[in-house]
Amino acid sequence: MTENKIPYKIYLEESEMPTAWYNVRADMKTKPAPLLNPATGEPVSFDDLRAVFCDELVRQELDNDTRYIPIPQEIQDFYKMYRPSPLVRAYCLEEKLGTPAKIYYKFEGNNTSGSHKLNSAIAQAYYAKNQGLKGVTTETGAGQWGTALAMACGYLGLDCKVYMVKCSYEQKPFRREVMRTYGASVTPSPSMTTEVGRRILAEDPDTTGSLGCAISEAVEDATTHEGYRYVLGSVLNQVLLHQSVIGVETKTAMDKYGVVPDIIIGCAGGGSNLGGLISPFMGEKLRGERDYEFIAVEPASCPSLTRGVFAYDFCDTGKVCPLAKMYTLGSGFIPAANHAGGLRYHGMSPVLSELYHEGLMEARSVEQTKVFEAAEYFARVEGILPAPESSHAIRVAIDEALKCKETGEEKTILFGLTGTGYFDLYAYQKFNDGLMSDYIPTDEELQSSFNKLPAF
Amino acid sequence: MTENKIPYKIYLEESEMPTAWYNVRADMKTKPAPLLNPATGEPVSFDDLRAVFCDELVRQELDNDTRYIPIPQEIQDFYKMYRPSPLVRAYCLEEKLGTPAKIYYKFEGNNTSGSHKLNSAIAQAYYAKNQGLKGVTTETGAGQWGTALAMACGYLGLDCKVYMVKCSYEQKPFRREVMRTYGASVTPSPSMTTEVGRRILAEDPDTTGSLGCAISEAVEDATTHEGYRYVLGSVLNQVLLHQSVIGVETKTAMDKYGVVPDIIIGCAGGGSNLGGLISPFMGEKLRGERDYEFIAVEPASCPSLTRGVFAYDFCDTGKVCPLAKMYTLGSGFIPAANHAGGLRYHGMSPVLSELYHEGLMEARSVEQTKVFEAAEYFARVEGILPAPESSHAIRVAIDEALKCKETGEEKTILFGLTGTGYFDLYAYQKFNDGLMSDYIPTDEELQSSFNKLPAF
Repeated sequence: MTENKIPYKIYLEESEMPTAWYNVRADMKTKPAPLLNPATGEPVSFDDLRAVFCDELVRQELDNDTRYIPIPQEIQDFYKMYRPSPLVRAYCLEEKLGTPAKIYYKFEGNNTSGSHKLNSAIAQAYYAKNQGLKGVTTETGAGQWGTALAMACGYLGLDCKVYMVKCSYEQKPFRREVMRTYGASVTPSPSMTTEVGRRILAEDPDTTGSLGCAISEAVEDATTHEGYRYVLGSVLNQVLLHQSVIGVETKTAMDKYGVVPDIIIGCAGGGSNLGGLISPFMGEKLRGERDYEFIAVEPASCPSLTRGVFAYDFCDTGKVCPLAKMYTLGSGFIPAANHAGGLRYHGMSPVLSELYHEGLMEARSVEQTKVFEAAEYFARVEGILPAPESSHAIRVAIDEALKCKETGEEKTILFGLTGTGYFDLYAYQKFNDGLMSDYIPTDEELQSSFNKLPAF
Repeated sequence: MTENKIPYKIYLEESEMPTAWYNVRADMKTKPAPLLNPATGEPVSFDDLRAVFCDELVRQELDNDTRYIPIPQEIQDFYKMYRPSPLVRAYCLEEKLGTPAKIYYKFEGNNTSGSHKLNSAIAQAYYAKNQGLKGVTTETGAGQWGTALAMACGYLGLDCKVYMVKCSYEQKPFRREVMRTYGASVTPSPSMTTEVGRRILAEDPDTTGSLGCAISEAVEDATTHEGYRYVLGSVLNQVLLHQSVIGVETKTAMDKYGVVPDIIIGCAGGGSNLGGLISPFMGEKLRGERDYEFIAVEPASCPSLTRGVFAYDFCDTGKVCPLAKMYTLGSGFIPAANHAGGLRYHGMSPVLSELYHEGLMEARSVEQTKVFEAAEYFARVEGILPAPESSHAIRVAIDEALKCKETGEEKTILFGLTGTGYFDLYAYQKFNDGLMSDYIPTDEELQSSFNKLPAF
């Protein structure tokens, strides 16, 4: 431990914190495919999007060329309240595993939203405020994103309307209360307050909701109320851009200590954390400056990269949003009811989809019982109760470290620990009681979902 | 902000972290009164106490003379997993309040136990392990201490039995699951597994339990099982000693930036956080080197310092523990049912009691609706959802900062932010729904409790 003098936790000085986000699209030879207007099938224009998103965010969404986009001072100041996040050297985990690998993780859970989501929430809320808007609408599943947005809006004095997937709303009343404490209004989705919600309820009155459906409601709410825009916590290019603060901080900290990762691992639902973490590293790879191995980890019960198709699809169930070209399971896909590990979005960030399609990134799927085993192990050894989402990355990081133990390789492994599991104790309880099971969708189920993909 | 160059958060370097605890008793002219053996009324001996506590912890409990007690390397290493905790300059709060005061808080909530309790849990578990014991028993109320102990024991591979106050066990199933995830067994108290539990249940079958009662059960469990000892999360001298890591880190960070606090504020239930935070500062005051104003903040519904008596009393309801001389409301005192803000112990650390008795420290009591108002305000402005306990300190820090606004004084205010409120959302929900009320015990109620004090 003392020979290399790397502390347990590396915190950057305030003066070393990022002043610009890293836009990895600038380095991509093949840019992510443009979003399509569902009415025309044509690429969306600036004007199409500004009905839904703030102007500045539309600019960021469409900007495939500018590598460094300055972080406004107000956002930098907000970041200082909970950032820099620590880059942790997992000495205890290494010792317990008996691996020659060196393991690092970037921990994004030390803020009240409990995850990295706050990085983009404050950016999106800031631009909305700056444009003179009254408020924003959004959807949330497990509640991490909704909590983050509520915090950002509470800070800026912006109205915040959250559509929360009904089963989460009922199973996670505490997340709801955090959002309310920050002044947000929270509506279970599908709801009777939107047309799309009423339509979905008419078709299936007992539905417990889905992210795709909540997105449709939030978009409708924003576009039918003066002074509101919709904001989204993952998938979009702009979100990956904001989340690059994770990767830039990580790279600065590693460079400072002369550490170069061999493998970079992240969980991937919509792709916001993984995309943010890898951005500056992927930039080096794309420019041919240095090679890294990137691994996206997803649930076996919602395997968009490993078993989905690369095609244009709707981002939402209600089909009111633009179409994105991405790895998808079909916008109607809903993971099996026993799935407790998060990362349940049917698609994947177009940026990550393109990188994966080009073979610049690997993907693995893992079953949730294996994920919770890793989570419990990690909690006891490293002292942090991880979010189920984050634990997907832990699982594969441990697997890779154990491979090193077999081969004797001293690889440097970096993974993203996106958040804490403090609001996921129902899932932990299931695991503690031995009641957790796995479900892997059959080829037939997936094919039936693919058959409903739009013909774009 | 830039003129004084103090960052939003001060993190010590690993090399600056404390290597010794600070024992404030060494500086006290009048030492805290000794614990008494309830059977004999005589001061407890080393041998009396070692039936209950580990040998090394008994030594620390009785050591009134050694100012610096080295922190074993293994504990220092564990501390590195979640410490140093940040000393935060509350720029946002200062600006929002429009106060000329400079506000700092030491934030102990960035670990899975959610509070400062882990600082003593790891120390007590370490000494138990080192003595070759099988395990430890303890009580927990809100669950912060039990979670901390479960984490420490999970890390060291020590058996951990937690008696959890029944109403908390039922209202806080998630805390219970965190403990279980770390491998602890959790029993609602009073229970049928101990004699004292059965006795209390026979007297009052519908009791929802109390800390004092859970202590009795845990002590009985430890003393009737080979290889077990009892550990306690507050009140005791040894706990204040371990918690001095908070104060030593704070003082090191402030000294580094040339900052001297005028007022130091902490919430006080049993006194572990406040005692730890003030230790090195109080040392200076006791030695006449520098003056500080210290303020202990307690709930108006459980006002041991402000309305209790300074007398020998039992530490537990079952009267199996030694007697301590302290400010107490009587060991049978239980706060009103509507009390949601924690800090519900009937007594107060003998060290703090003595300091308060000598006029070296002030105390204030605050009503819980005012506490939750401060909590919500703080959450929105500083981005951290505070524990109700910690919010007592926030309340008084805000009050003091507003006084400075009136007088124009540029005082430097330091307070302890002991933990997060992620597991206190029932209480927040009550507040969000406008259903929270206050209760201040009447003089008659307190007198009736005082009348039952033991005649020592």
